[in-house]
Amino acid sequence: MPIEKTLAEKYCAIRKFSIDICMPLEKEDYVVQPIEDVSPPKWHLGHLTWFFEQFILSTYKKNYIVFNSEYAFFFNSYYESLGARSVRTDRGNITRPTTDDIYKYREYVDKEILVLLSEMENHDDEFIEIFELGLNHEQQHQELLITDIKYILGNNPIFPAYHKTEKTEASYLNKLSFLDIEEGIYLIGHDNSSFSFDNEKANHKVFQPAFKIANRTISNEEYLIFIKDGGYQNFKYWLSEGWEWVKSSKISSPLYWHEINGEWFYYTLLGLRKIKLNEPVSHVSFFEADAFARWNKCRLPTEFEWEIACKKYSPILSDNSNFAESKKFYPEFNNENKYGFLGDVWEWTNSAYLPYPNYYQAEGAIGEYNGKFMINQMVLRGGSCATPKSHIRTTYRNFFPTNKQWQFSGIRLAKNM
Amino acid sequence: MPIEKTLAEKYCAIRKFSIDICMPLEKEDYVVQPIEDVSPPKWHLGHLTWFFEQFILSTYKKNYIVFNSEYAFFFNSYYESLGARSVRTDRGNITRPTTDDIYKYREYVDKEILVLLSEMENHDDEFIEIFELGLNHEQQHQELLITDIKYILGNNPIFPAYHKTEKTEASYLNKLSFLDIEEGIYLIGHDNSSFSFDNEKANHKVFQPAFKIANRTISNEEYLIFIKDGGYQNFKYWLSEGWEWVKSSKISSPLYWHEINGEWFYYTLLGLRKIKLNEPVSHVSFFEADAFARWNKCRLPTEFEWEIACKKYSPILSDNSNFAESKKFYPEFNNENKYGFLGDVWEWTNSAYLPYPNYYQAEGAIGEYNGKFMINQMVLRGGSCATPKSHIRTTYRNFFPTNKQWQFSGIRLAKNM
Amino acid sequence: MPIEKTLAEKYCAIRKFSIDICMPLEKEDYVVQPIEDVSPPKWHLGHLTWFFEQFILSTYKKNYIVFNSEYAFFFNSYYESLGARSVRTDRGNITRPTTDDIYKYREYVDKEILVLLSEMENHDDEFIEIFELGLNHEQQHQELLITDIKYILGNNPIFPAYHKTEKTEASYLNKLSFLDIEEGIYLIGHDNSSFSFDNEKANHKVFQPAFKIANRTISNEEYLIFIKDGGYQNFKYWLSEGWEWVKSSKISSPLYWHEINGEWFYYTLLGLRKIKLNEPVSHVSFFEADAFARWNKCRLPTEFEWEIACKKYSPILSDNSNFAESKKFYPEFNNENKYGFLGDVWEWTNSAYLPYPNYYQAEGAIGEYNGKFMINQMVLRGGSCATPKSHIRTTYRNFFPTNKQWQFSGIRLAKNM
Amino acid sequence: MPIEKTLAEKYCAIRKFSIDICMPLEKEDYVVQPIEDVSPPKWHLGHLTWFFEQFILSTYKKNYIVFNSEYAFFFNSYYESLGARSVRTDRGNITRPTTDDIYKYREYVDKEILVLLSEMENHDDEFIEIFELGLNHEQQHQELLITDIKYILGNNPIFPAYHKTEKTEASYLNKLSFLDIEEGIYLIGHDNSSFSFDNEKANHKVFQPAFKIANRTISNEEYLIFIKDGGYQNFKYWLSEGWEWVKSSKISSPLYWHEINGEWFYYTLLGLRKIKLNEPVSHVSFFEADAFARWNKCRLPTEFEWEIACKKYSPILSDNSNFAESKKFYPEFNNENKYGFLGDVWEWTNSAYLPYPNYYQAEGAIGEYNGKFMINQMVLRGGSCATPKSHIRTTYRNFFPTNKQWQFSGIRLAKNM
Repeated sequence: MPIEKTLAEKYCAIRKFSIDICMPLEKEDYVVQPIEDVSPPKWHLGHLTWFFEQFILSTYKKNYIVFNSEYAFFFNSYYESLGARSVRTDRGNITRPTTDDIYKYREYVDKEILVLLSEMENHDDEFIEIFELGLNHEQQHQELLITDIKYILGNNPIFPAYHKTEKTEASYLNKLSFLDIEEGIYLIGHDNSSFSFDNEKANHKVFQPAFKIANRTISNEEYLIFIKDGGYQNFKYWLSEGWEWVKSSKISSPLYWHEINGEWFYYTLLGLRKIKLNEPVSHVSFFEADAFARWNKCRLPTEFEWEIACKKYSPILSDNSNFAESKKFYPEFNNENKYGFLGDVWEWTNSAYLPYPNYYQAEGAIGEYNGKFMINQMVLRGGSCATPKSHIRTTYRNFFPTNKQWQFSGIRLAKNM
Repeated sequence: MPIEKTLAEKYCAIRKFSIDICMPLEKEDYVVQPIEDVSPPKWHLGHLTWFFEQFILSTYKKNYIVFNSEYAFFFNSYYESLGARSVRTDRGNITRPTTDDIYKYREYVDKEILVLLSEMENHDDEFIEIFELGLNHEQQHQELLITDIKYILGNNPIFPAYHKTEKTEASYLNKLSFLDIEEGIYLIGHDNSSFSFDNEKANHKVFQPAFKIANRTISNEEYLIFIKDGGYQNFKYWLSEGWEWVKSSKISSPLYWHEINGEWFYYTLLGLRKIKLNEPVSHVSFFEADAFARWNKCRLPTEFEWEIACKKYSPILSDNSNFAESKKFYPEFNNENKYGFLGDVWEWTNSAYLPYPNYYQAEGAIGEYNGKFMINQMVLRGGSCATPKSHIRTTYRNFFPTNKQWQFSGIRLAKNM
Repeated sequence: MPIEKTLAEKYCAIRKFSIDICMPLEKEDYVVQPIEDVSPPKWHLGHLTWFFEQFILSTYKKNYIVFNSEYAFFFNSYYESLGARSVRTDRGNITRPTTDDIYKYREYVDKEILVLLSEMENHDDEFIEIFELGLNHEQQHQELLITDIKYILGNNPIFPAYHKTEKTEASYLNKLSFLDIEEGIYLIGHDNSSFSFDNEKANHKVFQPAFKIANRTISNEEYLIFIKDGGYQNFKYWLSEGWEWVKSSKISSPLYWHEINGEWFYYTLLGLRKIKLNEPVSHVSFFEADAFARWNKCRLPTEFEWEIACKKYSPILSDNSNFAESKKFYPEFNNENKYGFLGDVWEWTNSAYLPYPNYYQAEGAIGEYNGKFMINQMVLRGGSCATPKSHIRTTYRNFFPTNKQWQFSGIRLAKNM
Repeated sequence: MPIEKTLAEKYCAIRKFSIDICMPLEKEDYVVQPIEDVSPPKWHLGHLTWFFEQFILSTYKKNYIVFNSEYAFFFNSYYESLGARSVRTDRGNITRPTTDDIYKYREYVDKEILVLLSEMENHDDEFIEIFELGLNHEQQHQELLITDIKYILGNNPIFPAYHKTEKTEASYLNKLSFLDIEEGIYLIGHDNSSFSFDNEKANHKVFQPAFKIANRTISNEEYLIFIKDGGYQNFKYWLSEGWEWVKSSKISSPLYWHEINGEWFYYTLLGLRKIKLNEPVSHVSFFEADAFARWNKCRLPTEFEWEIACKKYSPILSDNSNFAESKKFYPEFNNENKYGFLGDVWEWTNSAYLPYPNYYQAEGAIGEYNGKFMINQMVLRGGSCATPKSHIRTTYRNFFPTNKQWQFSGIRLAKNM
């Protein structure tokens, strides 16, 4: 099968999934930005299209005519090399271009991309690299689309449902226990045999002392014990900055949790529900994950520990793993997916997001993709129910600031041997 | 003609005009709140409907079933007596109920109101008072709809036009001169012969020294001279708090003005245009109006001076006056509308918004309508091109904080004799 | 007696009183600025001296050598005409010049002023005007010194006493009743027969409807009833902006009041004490004064009403009035000082601080003294226990923003006839 | 020599040095807190004394009577276990206890400590550990005293000098070159043979790829080239968060640098001086250090790289090293102190401040000393001209947020092999 065909097929499938995610939305849902982290869905759709227009069509297609020269101003996110950009906090106040305009923009660019792919005789490595980056970029934003839509609807006092798919009831909860890993020299990072982001490189050796890591992530039931034990009221479980955050932001539970007449509910994409106890706890910040671990006399794993354990116990993606493609968009425990390192919830690690030895940052706008965020963020591993399955790897490094809750982020414990 | 008919007719006409104003909007435009002062158009439409549901239907209609009991939470603006309300700064993040839902809500309430009016045998004074308050309230928000829509579109970097109606070219500019008013005891406020707001009452005597007042408001051409003379750079023309505002908010022109390559443009509802010189300057704050007056060795009139002059020189609404009904939505000078006290632009006065002698604040929610805002705001008089003509009076008192620019607000000078 | 002698005598007496006020302070107390409104005592002392150096010595004394050319930068308060000034919020972080340096500066300038006065053969009107302004300016800051010292010490969790003078016990509390004033044309403002500030001019006629005004200010006992009746918890007594202030600043009593185990205490310059019930309530903001009046089904008087009543009932300063010279620095009721319009506490009026008809603002820096603050402040009348007696007049207009509590500010009620 | 004697001698010497540092101050300098990071010198003196009173005297001395029971409230810094503490931002507004009071407090506690030491027959390990922690704590604050005093005086527009000691002129500048370190397994952290902080433990193995590290830190001359090359204006050298900081805080040079008429000056404890080119650049934030390294196509070393290189090239403290004991309080290059890993300036590393493997956090208040700050800070190594020599070690880990400049912090480059 010629490679052009594969790229085109991949392109169509991935681009279509972004639209699929938005299908249940009303026009109004596409527009708003209730907090700075959350971007309007129509902005995501425009930005993803602009990425292909900017980095593929404008570079590789002769005489390409941009759909609308003003769109670059709206849809550039943070590529300082590429000129003026819309201030991030103002994205939710920009009503034009409308959602319909942006759908037309997508159609135009999609058609041009397919023409380009069909016209090219062969693709050099540079083209493939940037094209695959575009596809992976689209998949990253698919996850953000899901979590941002959840925030937009979950922030509404009447808690509208996103979809009606009922939850399967029989999720299974293993007893929490710890897996042992021996001391040794391990290889960390991506081996460059296929696509990976620059932040996963270079593949390098680390000396790792022996440690123990939990056989699954923490459940809602376990987290409720922490809450009922006064976890949010006792400074001794918290990092100093975390304690300030709890007090100043009046945090007393994961995001989307509401205590109503003494019972705990949470907003899910199905609407407001009573909390299911045998489900992975989700939407906790690093501060909460860390406090829970201290309360439990454990700690979070480092990202190296996590990667070593994952490669040992879940080296390949299980057929039963729960990613975005299943369109459930909620995490679960699954007997068939033992250990659950991949999928369901991102797992906070106690590693700062910093470059690996021999990390190399590309020149120009592409080099801005990851490297410039390597400060004051913590690494998450493993992907979630909102991550496309074809996007995740055991070496994949996600990262967020320590007070963010709006991702599907959970807790796996570790401890010293 | 029976009074029921009149009320129903008035109701239909006024309610329809709110919809007319929104017709040129895209769905997306209904949703956003780019600054706290500006409310989403769909919120205005819901709030106005809620007002009739809350104060008329729930009180006067037997067995009335509210359209949706959750709407009160969204659409109450500031009536503390009536329970929890949506935080004002969050209005622009609430996507449901959708615009379509709110149009259905309007239809439902309109139908119920007309049934109620037709069923009532006669209306007591209290009913008429509150019903007329609802109509006047709707008209007030029609003005806000126009100014808020202007802000929503004018805040967009591509400056979309709201409508296409071309401006008439021949607006006329009188030479600026001053009218004399003699010392004396004058009667200020509304005589209660027809509807007025509580803040226009009671009609009372004031002793007024002689003064001079300008024969028209200031033009864009005159205001440009102030700008070019360094008006925004020289503290001596500004109140201390105004000077802080100019520096901290980096103000250097009226709202919507943009200097592009040495030429001045402004956003109008027709799009971005070169500034027309022989037009009333508009979208200036009190601070700017006051600074312009000082620079010109004049002062702003008090609201009493303004009312005395208006009653003497423009006691009745001219057929040529420019109000919202003309759907121009821009101010102009008009030879046929000499002095122009009424319409085109609101005129800032140097009077604080405070109660008149013997002001009486009603009990309950209705009493919250005006009285509780009587602090730290300045009075504007005369109505603008966005004010419904049937809503304005010579005694009408509008009020805004001193740093607000998003209304059609202009400048009329005064000086001592 | 030649006028020079009088000026020198006045100068010495007034300048000395500023020092007297500071005598009980520790060096540390001179330095800090716990809130923006409160200036460090050493700054006051430097600023007052700079005023005489800048406006008298530099203008009138030949070959005058400034004490230290860098001091202008520190001690200019807000005279934009006179160049760069220290940012107000940074005053409390500037440790040099030290207090000792500033005392030397005062001595230097005092000596030079007295030499100048003795050398001048006669003083023209302009000199006398500016010199008297300097003296009145010093007296204004003496009041601020007292209230700022109270804040600096009262903000300390161990509540150090400023002085030991024990309170006299026998303050007397009249029954609250209302005085009647007839409708008529009254003359308001200063008649220019002696020194007054520009904001008291010009003397002008107003038409005043009949009204009632209380025979004394509100007592702590009466204010406690308001507190216990839930006054701070019920929005209906409050202006909208006042209610926001109460909630966001968590206000539940006058400044310096502390509820300890169910009993009310307040910080006074004698230390923390149980509240004395038969004393005028003090340290309330305009918002609190206004809310108390509404709760009581009354209103605050306008400044015209206050001046008319004061001129009728307390036209001259009583020997028993309680001003700064008595060095009590706390308000009281006094049988000998019937009605108590003057002294003890400033009385909030419901008048915005705006220019009188025919107000004239001087050119240059002196013109910046009052006029540029004429916005978004409310007028207080009558002086307090911290105001020098020789500084106050029946026409004197003080002014503060509506949320300020750190002055000795109290409440006198009024109502319609 | 009996250990009691040694402890007492150490105690006296270290406690005296804190006073020595404060000797040049005026009373006013002891009081203020110009930014949140900077504490008033009198607070430092009180806090250090409180630490010995709280953790030694109250625990080990029978019938100990605290000097003043209210002082705990003022002088607890962040030990949440020990009750209410003064809000950090309010430290600079608290004038009492006075500096004299605090000196008396120090004398009282010093006397009691010496009595305690003389009375104890022998000291168990726990006592020695906490006592040594107290001494090391005092030394940490000595460094803060120096840097905070520098900020207090350097923030004053007249730039008062702290002391008069003239700088020696002949500091020497090696040519910048790189030292090679081989790949291997290295031991990192403190071996527990003497006092160290918990954050240096446990001693553990790491695998380190080969790297190069600079033979000295960057000079002012080299840093000026970065400035002149537009380093502060080009986003491409900066981390995203660093670039936001540069723009929002308007940063264009290290702290204390001022460009006056085209020439660069800096505030030193000797006053404002022309910048000496052959001196280590100091007072740069992590963001600046990182940007300088990128501009130079290098990177910052990790803390492991730094420790490996230091142990290889400067394993022991040179007699010529420049620490607080020399009372110079400015960094220099010194021919006799080759490589200069220890002293002069702290060196930013690209390592986040996180626990070492097998890190153990003590129970109770002492456990709050370090561990709870292990988030969103970067590690600095090597000590500075303000660090007591007896306080530093090759394994010592200092840490600050990425935007802090007020420490003596400089730049050492590294690169891949």
